Amino acid sequence: MGDKQSTKPPGGTRDVLPDDVRRREFVIDIVRGVYERYGFEPLETPAFENIETLLGKYGEEGNKLIFKILKRGEQESSGEADLALRYDLTVPLARVVAQYQNELPKFFRRYQIQPVWRADRPARGRFREFYQCDIDAIGSSSPVVEADVLGAVAEVLTTLGFSDFVIKLNHRRVLTALLDTAGVPEAKHGDALIAVDKLDKAGPDGVVKDLAARGIGGETAGRLLASLSTPAEGVLSALGGLLAEHPVGAAAVEELVTIARLAESTPSAGKVRIEPSLARGLSYYTGAIMEVAVPDLAGSLGGGGRYDNLVGMFLGRDVPACGFSLGLERIIVVMTERRMFPEALVGGAVDVMVTLWNDEGRGDALALASDLRRGGVRVEVYPEADKLGKQFKYASSRHVPFVAILGDDERARGEVAVKDLRSAAQVPVPRAQVVAYLRGRLTPDAGT
Amino acid sequence: MGDKQSTKPPGGTRDVLPDDVRRREFVIDIVRGVYERYGFEPLETPAFENIETLLGKYGEEGNKLIFKILKRGEQESSGEADLALRYDLTVPLARVVAQYQNELPKFFRRYQIQPVWRADRPARGRFREFYQCDIDAIGSSSPVVEADVLGAVAEVLTTLGFSDFVIKLNHRRVLTALLDTAGVPEAKHGDALIAVDKLDKAGPDGVVKDLAARGIGGETAGRLLASLSTPAEGVLSALGGLLAEHPVGAAAVEELVTIARLAESTPSAGKVRIEPSLARGLSYYTGAIMEVAVPDLAGSLGGGGRYDNLVGMFLGRDVPACGFSLGLERIIVVMTERRMFPEALVGGAVDVMVTLWNDEGRGDALALASDLRRGGVRVEVYPEADKLGKQFKYASSRHVPFVAILGDDERARGEVAVKDLRSAAQVPVPRAQVVAYLRGRLTPDAGT
Repeated sequence: MGDKQSTKPPGGTRDVLPDDVRRREFVIDIVRGVYERYGFEPLETPAFENIETLLGKYGEEGNKLIFKILKRGEQESSGEADLALRYDLTVPLARVVAQYQNELPKFFRRYQIQPVWRADRPARGRFREFYQCDIDAIGSSSPVVEADVLGAVAEVLTTLGFSDFVIKLNHRRVLTALLDTAGVPEAKHGDALIAVDKLDKAGPDGVVKDLAARGIGGETAGRLLASLSTPAEGVLSALGGLLAEHPVGAAAVEELVTIARLAESTPSAGKVRIEPSLARGLSYYTGAIMEVAVPDLAGSLGGGGRYDNLVGMFLGRDVPACGFSLGLERIIVVMTERRMFPEALVGGAVDVMVTLWNDEGRGDALALASDLRRGGVRVEVYPEADKLGKQFKYASSRHVPFVAILGDDERARGEVAVKDLRSAAQVPVPRAQVVAYLRGRLTPDAGT
Repeated sequence: MGDKQSTKPPGGTRDVLPDDVRRREFVIDIVRGVYERYGFEPLETPAFENIETLLGKYGEEGNKLIFKILKRGEQESSGEADLALRYDLTVPLARVVAQYQNELPKFFRRYQIQPVWRADRPARGRFREFYQCDIDAIGSSSPVVEADVLGAVAEVLTTLGFSDFVIKLNHRRVLTALLDTAGVPEAKHGDALIAVDKLDKAGPDGVVKDLAARGIGGETAGRLLASLSTPAEGVLSALGGLLAEHPVGAAAVEELVTIARLAESTPSAGKVRIEPSLARGLSYYTGAIMEVAVPDLAGSLGGGGRYDNLVGMFLGRDVPACGFSLGLERIIVVMTERRMFPEALVGGAVDVMVTLWNDEGRGDALALASDLRRGGVRVEVYPEADKLGKQFKYASSRHVPFVAILGDDERARGEVAVKDLRSAAQVPVPRAQVVAYLRGRLTPDAGT
């Protein structure tokens, strides 16, 4: 038998047991339904990509968190990697858009619900393997796209039962214009964005410290933080004022104004909040950026934005694109803590357990199970001829509502004894009628 | 913009574009439905496992085909791997059974539909990333389990539309008893099984050659091949005769007799064929082994069997187990070639496209789309104020049946013009009635 081995899943990953799979499927079904009503089509890509597809797309922090796969066969001993696990669903999409440009519609709208892997430090709601639920709209730079994406995200969250979420909205070019006007040199913009992105968690002092460590002095940092702390009331006109002399920044503010106004015609009405300090970690964003927040989670439930240059890295010419990614595990963490899942999701995987009286009855038990299953009933056959009491007890522990008993007497009379484990009532039912009888008891509306 | 990069998925993997995702989901929905009617519950495990969980479980050939993941951070330069991609769903299940033994029911029946990865040479229907659809029943060594599994597999295939499949059935202990009686020394059994498993593809001469290369002489090989070539008619009594003096082998033949008889009470009736040369590659099988064949595919659509020792490698005590794995990609390859998919799966992801007249109409277009979507209609908003003819053409190319036109006139009159792109008929509909109108047109039964 060999040594006993560790049975835990790898650090930062989880086994998803049946009740939890049902919770996941409950969320995924709602997400998929909304995404499809928004005209997005499903896409799936491989779990791993050629390593050069991923490297250099996620900024300095991202590169370190990519899981790399060793070359195989004789090259394994080189210790080199040629493949890497998917880090998000956006870079693979950009590759797909470039690869199948002639087959895909001009305004390709796809959703993708698949796991991604990041070698991050695990935390509450943060895992090394997690599912992203992405939508992306390719081919248009119209602000209608941002508004439509905001609407889809809001409709998903509302349908799941969230009412207290906010979608923070900002614009990368507003941010860089604020960096410009604060006096941050362009070469330091990337550094500054990484620091600013942590304002929520690190606070103004933490950001000033981080900026200093990145060579951005106190006076510049002070100006920058002041402009990022514009009060929510009238934030767009304040930003417009700050950037009046910065043509690119002013145009970006105008875009934000348009997006925010169009969003009012979608289910995101009243949910969008302009947040000048929102930076988003990923380096590929070029325009609007968005992030969903709920009060009881430090991280976000999801984020997204416009990335008009990423497809170009694969295609050789730029294609505008905008999307959003919802984090499945974080949604489930919050929904579980808030008890937002229907109780019926837990247990109840089996409608009827067919008991086994003796070895001679095995064939009849399997035949009865087959008939019931063909009638849409979910059936488990107790596999061994145990004491009947033990079989009832097992069915009860599994929350099975009915057991079907095919003893020697029942078989001789052409009957099945059906026991309702909730009421303990037991009735004989002719074998030929037992499927209809049980279907009727299981779905009261259908009658017997 | 940098260098243009390769846009192909890694060798042996594929991007699954929308129509193909819909085909996959069609198959998965049927598989999941049947598995649930058989009382199996869903499980998901991480894509990677600690490397020692996988090594040594799949035999000499399997070990080489495992994708290994480099250690991260400072240890990356060591070139060592600490994780490995899931090679099948059975070993992770065995680990899960050991880890959660106190939470899982005694007769844990789980299904799992997830991808696995093998660094195999790609071929028709054979990929490096592919989905397995597994069922496994833990905790009983009763032949009822094998019969139930055979029934579930047959019902999946029949429900998908297959009628010409055969489920080959054999028994590892029948095989090893045949090796014994042919004179293959026990130390060579593993080698002999690998050779015999290729009888289908390599033919008798190929197997004899392979056996010779593995140190099993011509006379022994001849006896072995003769016993493996028992004609289908009366195969079980022939095997019983061959193994009459081999108590373990004779008992295994008895088990096969029982399983075959019980299977006649399930949807696998008439589909099971005893195949004495069936060996199955994986090393963990201990009892019955099974494999699904269709005439037009060289490989199998799936396989399985009993593995009573695998859980013990993790738990320290043996737990009986039996399962089956269907290969999603191979099923899809055959179903595609045979045109078994409903035509409605292709295209048709959008019911209504809302056109865009000018920038002023964007908010109204988004609001109309929101109303329709809330009514369950799948809607795409054309994102840019293009010429109307161009927008119609785009909708046609996307197989969208209806376009909704919100021009200045329509908006002034509180109407929407609805154009049926199949008939080219265009009718004005009051804005307040357009959701009901389109729902009625899309689902004729629902009326308007």
